[in-house]
Amino acid sequence: MMITSAKNDRIKDIKSLRTRKGRRDTGLHLIEGERLVTDVLESGVVPDTVLVAEWNTTAGAKLDELDVPYITVTGEVMKAVSDTDSPQGVLAAVKTPDTSVPEEYPAGLIVCLDRIQDPGNLGTVLRTADAFGAAGVIVGEGSVDPFMPKAVRAAMGSTYHIPVWQGELKTELKRLREAGFGIVCGHLEGAEDLPELGEKRVIVIGNEANGVSPEVAEECFLYRLPMKGRAESLNAAVAAAILIYKLSE
Amino acid sequence: MMITSAKNDRIKDIKSLRTRKGRRDTGLHLIEGERLVTDVLESGVVPDTVLVAEWNTTAGAKLDELDVPYITVTGEVMKAVSDTDSPQGVLAAVKTPDTSVPEEYPAGLIVCLDRIQDPGNLGTVLRTADAFGAAGVIVGEGSVDPFMPKAVRAAMGSTYHIPVWQGELKTELKRLREAGFGIVCGHLEGAEDLPELGEKRVIVIGNEANGVSPEVAEECFLYRLPMKGRAESLNAAVAAAILIYKLSE
Repeated sequence: MMITSAKNDRIKDIKSLRTRKGRRDTGLHLIEGERLVTDVLESGVVPDTVLVAEWNTTAGAKLDELDVPYITVTGEVMKAVSDTDSPQGVLAAVKTPDTSVPEEYPAGLIVCLDRIQDPGNLGTVLRTADAFGAAGVIVGEGSVDPFMPKAVRAAMGSTYHIPVWQGELKTELKRLREAGFGIVCGHLEGAEDLPELGEKRVIVIGNEANGVSPEVAEECFLYRLPMKGRAESLNAAVAAAILIYKLSE
Repeated sequence: MMITSAKNDRIKDIKSLRTRKGRRDTGLHLIEGERLVTDVLESGVVPDTVLVAEWNTTAGAKLDELDVPYITVTGEVMKAVSDTDSPQGVLAAVKTPDTSVPEEYPAGLIVCLDRIQDPGNLGTVLRTADAFGAAGVIVGEGSVDPFMPKAVRAAMGSTYHIPVWQGELKTELKRLREAGFGIVCGHLEGAEDLPELGEKRVIVIGNEANGVSPEVAEECFLYRLPMKGRAESLNAAVAAAILIYKLSE
């Protein structure tokens, strides 16, 4: 079976996943790119639909090998559906996992995001949290959707490797404190020494331009990364990464 | 004076700065964006030419205040010259600093880049090196040009705050070793403990996909960032940042 028209209903449904509304209405989201799609499928995620551009025969062969059914589409249809300028010719619509907050948070490092606005940054933080063995990531209200295509691409599969929760951050921080977590956020006016922290610890990453909001900062120990050079001059994903690394030590 | 045609010779010259050849032929490069241009001009860099889109009256007023002459252009001309999809309406052509390697390297942390391919990563690394007080950055042969517009944008002014040198990396590493520098690179097969390092230290950052090349790795102590989670899963600029942070401690 090959779909040759971008007006096909199935194609229109998949295109809608580029919008928050489309993702909410269907409970699906889009993953794109050869490596990401095969990694995610190999990790056991069952796709709703997989599309392969007719020119990408290697991706087709790989999916045959994994025994994953897919629909072949023309290059034109792939371009219409893809979220990228140069589609790699393979994408999948997969079920969005449940992101409601847990009744009890697991011990370990929990990474919280306060109003992160750039999907690339959000995905990169998920990837870093995964690399340093964080127990999970809370994406606070007012942040971009972790399942938008660009965030999923930047996370390089980590979206499916660590728990991602969505909730109201101040409420969750209060719950975490009551559960014995030590809570730290990066802050330009903070102290340059970290307090003694137990195994249960939280790092809050603030908005790219404005940092952590005052209501959230109230719940945190304010920590300033010791920088010998000029302050305020770290890229947001970089600052988040150094904080996650530091807190995972 | 207002330029209304993208075919104007001055405009064509500035457009050429988006290419490596144009930058080499003129000895100039492009900086773009309101904050970056004003920061750089305030830091004392003297521009060859500044262009302001007629719609951006705040940028014009700011430049008048700084007593910097500029040429007003139409929005269309700005779009033709700009390297970005949504121009901020102000850009400058400035003299590219001399990047030849010094006779003697300053003491401190020197960051070396081995065949970095993404200009955004290169700029982000310059910014991080600046934030952690590095003494300078060597951009090795085979890396992208640190003066391409996207690299300059990602560096957020750091291009002008720390020395940037361009050279053949293996040669420079030998010189650095002879000068008493301890040389470390991030490597997936390295040791998880750093050796004792003096004040003179070098961190080598490898290519995004392939890491540090074998010829360069020969000159280095191979260090693997201790990661509790899954290996190989850090974004290149993030891995570089954590290494720079770690070595600047």
